[in-house]
Amino acid sequence: MDIWEIGKRAKEASRVLAELSGDVKNRALFEMAESLSEAKREILSANEKDIAAAREKGMSQALIDRLKLNESRMLSMTRGLQALADLPDPVGQGEVIKRPNGLTIMRTHVPFGVIGIIYEARPNVTSDAAGICLKAGNSVILRGGSETINSNKAIVSALVLGAKKAGIPEGAISLIEDIGHESAMALMKMREYVDLLIPRGGAGLIKAVSANSTVPVIETGVGNCHVYVDESADLEMAKHIIINAKTSRPSVCNAAETLLVHKAVAGKFLPEALNALQQKGVELRGCPETCQIFPGIKPASEEDWAEEYLDLILAVKVVKNIDEAIEHINRYGSSHSEAIVTKNYDSANEFLSRVDAACVYVNASTRFTDGGEFGFGAEIGISTQKLHARGPMGLKELTTVKYLILGDGQIRE
Amino acid sequence: MDIWEIGKRAKEASRVLAELSGDVKNRALFEMAESLSEAKREILSANEKDIAAAREKGMSQALIDRLKLNESRMLSMTRGLQALADLPDPVGQGEVIKRPNGLTIMRTHVPFGVIGIIYEARPNVTSDAAGICLKAGNSVILRGGSETINSNKAIVSALVLGAKKAGIPEGAISLIEDIGHESAMALMKMREYVDLLIPRGGAGLIKAVSANSTVPVIETGVGNCHVYVDESADLEMAKHIIINAKTSRPSVCNAAETLLVHKAVAGKFLPEALNALQQKGVELRGCPETCQIFPGIKPASEEDWAEEYLDLILAVKVVKNIDEAIEHINRYGSSHSEAIVTKNYDSANEFLSRVDAACVYVNASTRFTDGGEFGFGAEIGISTQKLHARGPMGLKELTTVKYLILGDGQIRE
Repeated sequence: MDIWEIGKRAKEASRVLAELSGDVKNRALFEMAESLSEAKREILSANEKDIAAAREKGMSQALIDRLKLNESRMLSMTRGLQALADLPDPVGQGEVIKRPNGLTIMRTHVPFGVIGIIYEARPNVTSDAAGICLKAGNSVILRGGSETINSNKAIVSALVLGAKKAGIPEGAISLIEDIGHESAMALMKMREYVDLLIPRGGAGLIKAVSANSTVPVIETGVGNCHVYVDESADLEMAKHIIINAKTSRPSVCNAAETLLVHKAVAGKFLPEALNALQQKGVELRGCPETCQIFPGIKPASEEDWAEEYLDLILAVKVVKNIDEAIEHINRYGSSHSEAIVTKNYDSANEFLSRVDAACVYVNASTRFTDGGEFGFGAEIGISTQKLHARGPMGLKELTTVKYLILGDGQIRE
Repeated sequence: MDIWEIGKRAKEASRVLAELSGDVKNRALFEMAESLSEAKREILSANEKDIAAAREKGMSQALIDRLKLNESRMLSMTRGLQALADLPDPVGQGEVIKRPNGLTIMRTHVPFGVIGIIYEARPNVTSDAAGICLKAGNSVILRGGSETINSNKAIVSALVLGAKKAGIPEGAISLIEDIGHESAMALMKMREYVDLLIPRGGAGLIKAVSANSTVPVIETGVGNCHVYVDESADLEMAKHIIINAKTSRPSVCNAAETLLVHKAVAGKFLPEALNALQQKGVELRGCPETCQIFPGIKPASEEDWAEEYLDLILAVKVVKNIDEAIEHINRYGSSHSEAIVTKNYDSANEFLSRVDAACVYVNASTRFTDGGEFGFGAEIGISTQKLHARGPMGLKELTTVKYLILGDGQIRE
């Protein structure tokens, strides 16, 4: 189908979706989950085609692992859809303002309309994004990568079938099957039909979408996160935090990429901590002082400070004080998640107020930046921009506001 | 000064502003008001230069009236700054979430950083925008039109002087004095220094900024607003509402531009209402049915439905039912403010839910769409977009969110 036709149908469907009750949307989510289960065989066999094509192209094993679907991943997709039904519907919630002239102003949350998602790799995003957009009353246009096109086709056709059983119009969930560059560019220019575009993927994808889109964009998920170990830190705690932040899941955006250590504790902290990290398989890249304290590791280059490794690699830098740590973070960080380990009240406050990021932690791992961990139930991504949403984006962030004003003949003086 | 240098200084100043207490910002607002009063003579004489230049260029009297400063307009500028001091500081306000693992998550409002305002005509915007941005902890870069350059220079230099007395860094309030096209374009591309851009002015300006800016934009103030008179309307009320919406201040964005009337009441309603509008000096442009009921007026062209007149002109159309009214509004409207006059509960609900606009009214004039009228105290404009802010934008909309997370060693499983 022509991409403009997809946009038009999505817009039309969004007008129907906006008026659906929470009950109907929840029923649709259950039907979508069931339909996904029933199509398991087709989806897994489509996924095998993608895996075979990836192997042929010589894709890395790590990337192939991200593409791969299996029974347990399928199960978590269906459970994700069912779990959305349990969350409160954000649509129609809001506040009431009564004005002295008698006007009743309702500030209510309403769906955006049509949300476009441009993403790479993991096919579970297809189902997660479709579910969360529908729950918030939005049509979704999915534009996945070429590497998962067969999986995505099979997943979307199952989702559409399920949603249809609950009376959801077909245009509500669409996949752009044309995986050429032009289809993504067209999606970025369809202001007429698309209200919001969310790119999910690597820094290159995010940057390309931001630079080219005339549709409003929310940037997500590039995480060059730091852990700063202050002079006063509990060093045992600091060690556990950096190990967790770096190694518990190195391929995700809230993993730490650089360790900063106050010079007063570097001599004591680094040997034990870096040794523990190495034992977990972490490759270290140090500033000159780090290399002196902990010889035999690779020296860090200027590029290392700006790098989001998404891998078992950690840059390490000794700083002369908290100011240098904060300046380093504000210069090289991606405004995602930043942590200080400290026992000092003033240092904690200074770090919290001066670090410019979506999530700033005292004495906890950066890995908690996540809609589930924050108690939002579901998320569409982590926004690293300041407009509209910052940090984990839950259902409410997929809505906009509409003022409904009830009067009995008021006119303005 | 070089525009990139202005950007850099604004960014640096924003880091200081973000940490200022409400008391200091309020003191600055009072100092700015006082400084503005003291510079009254210089400002009025600079304004005279602008007026003379405007006359020389043959600008219309209506436009010259908008440029003109006088004692009472100066007084409302200084009072506006003082009034901001009385409003609650949005910075640092927020909610607390306690998680089962012991983490305390504070969702707090923080300043954006640097806000750019590109605007036309009225010089009071210079002072209003500087005040509201400062109150919300943001640096502001002002880029007014060539027609008010002398007034703006005098106003900004007084504001900077006053702010300085309260310890506000100089970069916090800047005016781009270079009024060439390139300076506006540069401002639209300074993602490094500018966090948010708000264009204020006509549809052409808003469109140009949206199309060219790589800095995030909030579109404001284009208002093609409608009043729809339903079959069941109290016709006397409807007459008062359309007269108010059209004539109380025709040059503003929340004024009505088109009247839609249900065919069942058109014959009864239109002669009296249109006659009353004509007596107020309104030029009418009607659909064929309107011209038949009320002969002698100009026929409306297709362009009239899309036009924001900002003048004493009103397009009038008879519709066959509420569906046609809603479709007309969603097709030609600018998603600003829309009103229905009705006694029917179902019609009211349908209009509220299906009209896609920032503010939707039942039985009240569209003219109430305003930060002051909504009880927000001050506003920087009316957003007609869905991302971040929609409708009147108060102080809170000039902030973003930052999550501050306090732990005692939590790591993620």
